Amino acid sequence: MIYGHGDDLYKFQDKIIANFSSNVWYKGPDPQVLDAIQRSIPFVKNYPEPNGDSLCKKLASIYSLNANNFIITNGAAEAFYMIAQAFRQTTATIFTPTFSEYEDAANVNDIQCSFIPFEDLKNDLKIRTKIAFICNPNNPTGQQFESGFLLDLMKTNTDTLFIVDEAYADFTVSRQSILPYIYSIPNFLIVHSFTKTFGIPGLRIGFIAGQPEQVEAIARFKIPWAVNAIALHTMEFVADNYKQLKPSMAPLLTECLWFREEINKIGGFEAMQSSTTYFLTKMANGSASALKEYLINYNGCLIRDASNFRGLNHQYFRLATLDREKNILLLNGLRAWKAYTGS
Amino acid sequence: MIYGHGDDLYKFQDKIIANFSSNVWYKGPDPQVLDAIQRSIPFVKNYPEPNGDSLCKKLASIYSLNANNFIITNGAAEAFYMIAQAFRQTTATIFTPTFSEYEDAANVNDIQCSFIPFEDLKNDLKIRTKIAFICNPNNPTGQQFESGFLLDLMKTNTDTLFIVDEAYADFTVSRQSILPYIYSIPNFLIVHSFTKTFGIPGLRIGFIAGQPEQVEAIARFKIPWAVNAIALHTMEFVADNYKQLKPSMAPLLTECLWFREEINKIGGFEAMQSSTTYFLTKMANGSASALKEYLINYNGCLIRDASNFRGLNHQYFRLATLDREKNILLLNGLRAWKAYTGS
Repeated sequence: MIYGHGDDLYKFQDKIIANFSSNVWYKGPDPQVLDAIQRSIPFVKNYPEPNGDSLCKKLASIYSLNANNFIITNGAAEAFYMIAQAFRQTTATIFTPTFSEYEDAANVNDIQCSFIPFEDLKNDLKIRTKIAFICNPNNPTGQQFESGFLLDLMKTNTDTLFIVDEAYADFTVSRQSILPYIYSIPNFLIVHSFTKTFGIPGLRIGFIAGQPEQVEAIARFKIPWAVNAIALHTMEFVADNYKQLKPSMAPLLTECLWFREEINKIGGFEAMQSSTTYFLTKMANGSASALKEYLINYNGCLIRDASNFRGLNHQYFRLATLDREKNILLLNGLRAWKAYTGS
Repeated sequence: MIYGHGDDLYKFQDKIIANFSSNVWYKGPDPQVLDAIQRSIPFVKNYPEPNGDSLCKKLASIYSLNANNFIITNGAAEAFYMIAQAFRQTTATIFTPTFSEYEDAANVNDIQCSFIPFEDLKNDLKIRTKIAFICNPNNPTGQQFESGFLLDLMKTNTDTLFIVDEAYADFTVSRQSILPYIYSIPNFLIVHSFTKTFGIPGLRIGFIAGQPEQVEAIARFKIPWAVNAIALHTMEFVADNYKQLKPSMAPLLTECLWFREEINKIGGFEAMQSSTTYFLTKMANGSASALKEYLINYNGCLIRDASNFRGLNHQYFRLATLDREKNILLLNGLRAWKAYTGS
């Protein structure tokens, strides 16, 4: 791996009261999901389904598609590595700053990467690579593209296969998934991760969706039994109760607006625009790595030092909105750091 | 995937009383292991360690090596695919019949395979491929090679990297692991799967062991967070209590001897030699697939139709030894099938 990862909570577990570094659902798993995990324990005695076919059928029902539109993956990460394997020794466009695993997966598979800043992305942009990764909404910026914009971009670039990462699509007011266009626009794949929405990233399960022929070509690189029995059975329960279990993001998005405004009032910190519940903050003075260390030790807050995202520098960190009490804890930490450094 | 898989229990779940098709520990997980899984549930709220470094340290302690000798993998399957990726577009030797994932992983990575029957394997055999897969003891035959034999083979073929699959090493009287020779013989990697020994294949966790430089070259192809939080934390508990939790195989190996003798008494079935608790059986008349279907429907026994192993044909099936009561159930099924078919 080239870059450090986002959620490094496991390194500081004992010290952390509030984890702003991870973008997963802040309330954690619903008790019903934890019960489903518990009920799944006996399934560890046998091998899981090699490819998670039962869950594919349930996804087909949720998204009004067919089971052969889906590949179940070991989190979204496995999806990017499988896709990159299928396109090894070709070329890819990556819009920066973004999730570092696209570049890592490309490098491991000898894919030559072209980097374009997100601000240069127009819907008539001419792309000259075999594949292109688009994170929508984008991580770490929270920027969201409307479906129409993306579909126009795809129509302009029919020789490019777009890998649209919708891991955070649920963390927005207006979900802009292009999954419904899977049969009308032939040159995209969707990657989605269930576990962020349901607060269970430790389970590791996600999916690729696309037209059957595309899905079949990628599935060639699938490692059998890659998703464990507990994850599969739990996600089958979640799929069966999808609408009821899916959290409502509206209150958290409102809290996010307040949180950003309060950060901007401190001075020296610019909480940037976002369509989601996480956002970048730019600091006028000092470095995000120093701030991160200070906050861990000062008040048990963990932030995401975003300086290692390609296209960002030491001034950037990423925050996920949590509940009011924790957000205040961080605000106090930022104020204290400002006083401490005299910045 | 080219071939069907062994444990297809999930297809027949409702009908099966006794599963002879899977080689995992027949008694299922120890209650302490199930408790450890239960205690691991809260960890799903966060991302697992990307590479399982904490478990690597515990493996180092169990095997008297260093943490950097190990890569934690999503079952043994991920290990073979990672290794094949690292050697893509080269050449491999596979001794047949054997576990089909070596060939699958090689094919996906454009590795040209040479197939040699196991009976032609001598310790002075000259191998001309970049890598060679050896399953010891072998699946499906149960044949075991002594460490000295394998080390001689490696010394004869210093240009070949040997991938020694020790998934079933615990299922023998005299464990012939070559892991202790990792620093004296430079051209091998070990792949091991914990979950067979502890009866928890649904958890998906295993490892690659080798010299640090070799391990580092393979780790380049590792998908981050590929092992989920429950599997990692449970296996840390198992590693901490390794000697106490490891099942004693001796009684099951004794039962296996009796089981094979009883099969051979029926007539028309030849239960073949094995150093482990599973073995191949060759039938004089009819096909393994027909027998499999008959046993599922007649008395709820699931066997492994072994006809799709390269080098075997429709006459072969594989059996894992279970407890006496279940073994008798299968013996009755084989007798009934013999009477039913008039063979």
